[in-house]
Amino acid sequence: MDPLRSPLLTDLYQLTMLQTYYRSRMEKTAVFELFVRKLPANRNFMMAAGLEQALDFLEQARFGPEELDWVARSGLFTAELVKHLERWRFTGDVHAMPEGSVFFPDEPILRVTAPMPEAQLVESRLINLIHFESVVASKAARSVLVAPGKTLVDFGLRRAHGAEAGLLAARAAYIAGFASTATVLAGSQFGIPVVGTMAHSFVQAHDDETQAFIDFAHAFPKGTIFLVDTYDTEAAVRKVAALAPALRREGISIQGVRLDSGDLVALARSARRILDAAGLTDAVVFASGNLEEYRLRELLAAGAPINGFGVGTSLVTSADAPSLDAVYKLQEYAGRPRRKRSAAKATWPGRKQVYRLSDASGRFHHDVVTVEGDRQDGEALLIPVMRGGKRLGKPEPLPETRARAAAQLERLPARLTALETAPDPYRVDIAPALRKLADEVDRATAEPAESVPQER
Amino acid sequence: MDPLRSPLLTDLYQLTMLQTYYRSRMEKTAVFELFVRKLPANRNFMMAAGLEQALDFLEQARFGPEELDWVARSGLFTAELVKHLERWRFTGDVHAMPEGSVFFPDEPILRVTAPMPEAQLVESRLINLIHFESVVASKAARSVLVAPGKTLVDFGLRRAHGAEAGLLAARAAYIAGFASTATVLAGSQFGIPVVGTMAHSFVQAHDDETQAFIDFAHAFPKGTIFLVDTYDTEAAVRKVAALAPALRREGISIQGVRLDSGDLVALARSARRILDAAGLTDAVVFASGNLEEYRLRELLAAGAPINGFGVGTSLVTSADAPSLDAVYKLQEYAGRPRRKRSAAKATWPGRKQVYRLSDASGRFHHDVVTVEGDRQDGEALLIPVMRGGKRLGKPEPLPETRARAAAQLERLPARLTALETAPDPYRVDIAPALRKLADEVDRATAEPAESVPQER
Repeated sequence: MDPLRSPLLTDLYQLTMLQTYYRSRMEKTAVFELFVRKLPANRNFMMAAGLEQALDFLEQARFGPEELDWVARSGLFTAELVKHLERWRFTGDVHAMPEGSVFFPDEPILRVTAPMPEAQLVESRLINLIHFESVVASKAARSVLVAPGKTLVDFGLRRAHGAEAGLLAARAAYIAGFASTATVLAGSQFGIPVVGTMAHSFVQAHDDETQAFIDFAHAFPKGTIFLVDTYDTEAAVRKVAALAPALRREGISIQGVRLDSGDLVALARSARRILDAAGLTDAVVFASGNLEEYRLRELLAAGAPINGFGVGTSLVTSADAPSLDAVYKLQEYAGRPRRKRSAAKATWPGRKQVYRLSDASGRFHHDVVTVEGDRQDGEALLIPVMRGGKRLGKPEPLPETRARAAAQLERLPARLTALETAPDPYRVDIAPALRKLADEVDRATAEPAESVPQER
Repeated sequence: MDPLRSPLLTDLYQLTMLQTYYRSRMEKTAVFELFVRKLPANRNFMMAAGLEQALDFLEQARFGPEELDWVARSGLFTAELVKHLERWRFTGDVHAMPEGSVFFPDEPILRVTAPMPEAQLVESRLINLIHFESVVASKAARSVLVAPGKTLVDFGLRRAHGAEAGLLAARAAYIAGFASTATVLAGSQFGIPVVGTMAHSFVQAHDDETQAFIDFAHAFPKGTIFLVDTYDTEAAVRKVAALAPALRREGISIQGVRLDSGDLVALARSARRILDAAGLTDAVVFASGNLEEYRLRELLAAGAPINGFGVGTSLVTSADAPSLDAVYKLQEYAGRPRRKRSAAKATWPGRKQVYRLSDASGRFHHDVVTVEGDRQDGEALLIPVMRGGKRLGKPEPLPETRARAAAQLERLPARLTALETAPDPYRVDIAPALRKLADEVDRATAEPAESVPQER
């Protein structure tokens, strides 16, 4: 069984609910929407990612013999459920915001319309995929905004939360505008450019640092970046510069140096001076080591002559906001709009659409969330992407997704592009039609509401 | 290709270094150690986990046809490297602290001894696996310490960072003392108890809350826990209580109720009162909803009559410390000890062992890190677990690992069991023999050291 595709990668309550739904013949059409309830502290916007993986999952999820065997042997379920699961397929429709779209709280970024047992079962994995890639895309966009023109590389695999996190973080960061990744599998699976040269261990394994550099240059004559901070950074840059003439005679070019510790501003300056003095004006200075967007801004503000940055742990764990308050909520069942009214967790009912209105310069001005069919001005953000369990069209090539994300970041209101939380958040209006529907749903339910949705 | 086992789940620089090592015939024995450089802000100790997955990876990693094809077509590598990779296997030895062990900064928790190209290539995935499970075990242990006797359940899959994170978080939390998980696949793959009942969507899909409860009870006559906060929590608990006599006549028992929002102290008290008044004194009150260890402590201090807690996002993302400063560093090559001297990142050289000394009551008193062979008092923590690429013995049954973790937590000095950072951290001594070795390595290296390892 492939754990990345197994429908057992779900919460047990999905299966207990399915047993009950099948037993009660509650298999009518359900509409669920995936949205984020609120922005985390350090974000002015979020960026949607993970849709392609979610659609892959919906197309491919099946209960194979191993899964069915586990369900049967668990002692928790009926033989009838096992029969239903054997036939279980996702046959529903999906509407979604395209990947790379900027989005805000209370806006559905994905809507599933399917028979209840299908729409319910996929909840856990849909959130799991779309939440994580959106977490990383939203984090990566901050480095992209703060370091325009710089080469940003994902270095995060080793401290990503497992294999899939490493792989999908590379993808999400690339969508958001990173240039490349160090993760080889992300290159082979998604076609993302992969880069990388040497670790400290490589230099240490040699008895002599210069010999390490020579060996490496000979193995990669097209040019490489030398890691210079294993012992004494300036001394190592001087060694690289001293090697240049001999390497040049052999037809080997020096691409640059990587700094991974110490005072990066001072070391970048001295590295630049040493390289320039040796005629290596095209060689780049690349920096890494516990970097995140605030540090990038600091380094650039200080005028550090750094051409590119490796960003790792803080990116792939989204260290300052490792999760979003992403949920997947029932909005309609059997043609009737539904809403949850739990304290501080109430939701807007019904099938919804989001319209985005721009100002004269093309910058996003505000959004309107309303019921589907209540046509508003602006661009409708949710589009059909799957019908009857099949994708509408081929998966989007990643460069197109990346271009969309770049265009979206350009259209952000300037106040939202800062790293700090904007004093006036982006405006998301709830349309009168949606408020009216919420009132109707409340009146139709026997118990009084504990609370109304919180407005921002 | 299985992304969880593919050796392409690595950083590109591992492959570039391998090309160079093979080219220069640097295939002598290398010793790498995996350790954490410093504790994150909110931790007084860490708990090791992930070793079994790491050993699985070392036993199974192979370059299959797809991997070799990618390397060959990448345009980055020589045909010679492809030939080497085709034969690549991990044939080395591994020493490690058993899973569930408590550990501290500068202490190796895993040591790899293998020909350089083998020991180097596995770096990224070894850190990726052991780092993540140790992050979650260390986080989970805090809830375990703060809520003794309470049933703790992992609810984190949906906001875990991908599939593997959800799966391995369940495992790590179980090792640290959680009772069970909601993640079905963790049950099928690791034999961890799985639990779960219903979501809000289940209640919402029914036109009537009582009918939802009746349907569910009939589908699970052995007993279930009812989710009571979809609309009005107290009203829902009263509905559950009112249903009890009829269900009892049908032989259906009520296990309890789950609160997922609102004032949990007040709601737990009123739920308890309502259940008790209905004679449901055995029914439990279970709580969930953005819980973490500080909140558990608060709820228990307030005397909330809650029997168990579902802990999700904060656990599986280790929200307050989503990473550890875990590294895998070359300590010896070709029989010569090595050390990195980068500013503030210098390492202790050579093959090391960690000894733990306890006080008269059996509580851990302090540790000594020294060179292998320098026998100290106390228990040696690193033991051989793999020889020649093969596991020594079978994978440890998870209940044994869990029992070890529990015993370790009992032996922690009391000051380290608090949620707040202890003013006096645990003492880790560097033995004279190790200091002497570091000096010798420094003297043998041409360049002067930029810094010495930081002592705590």
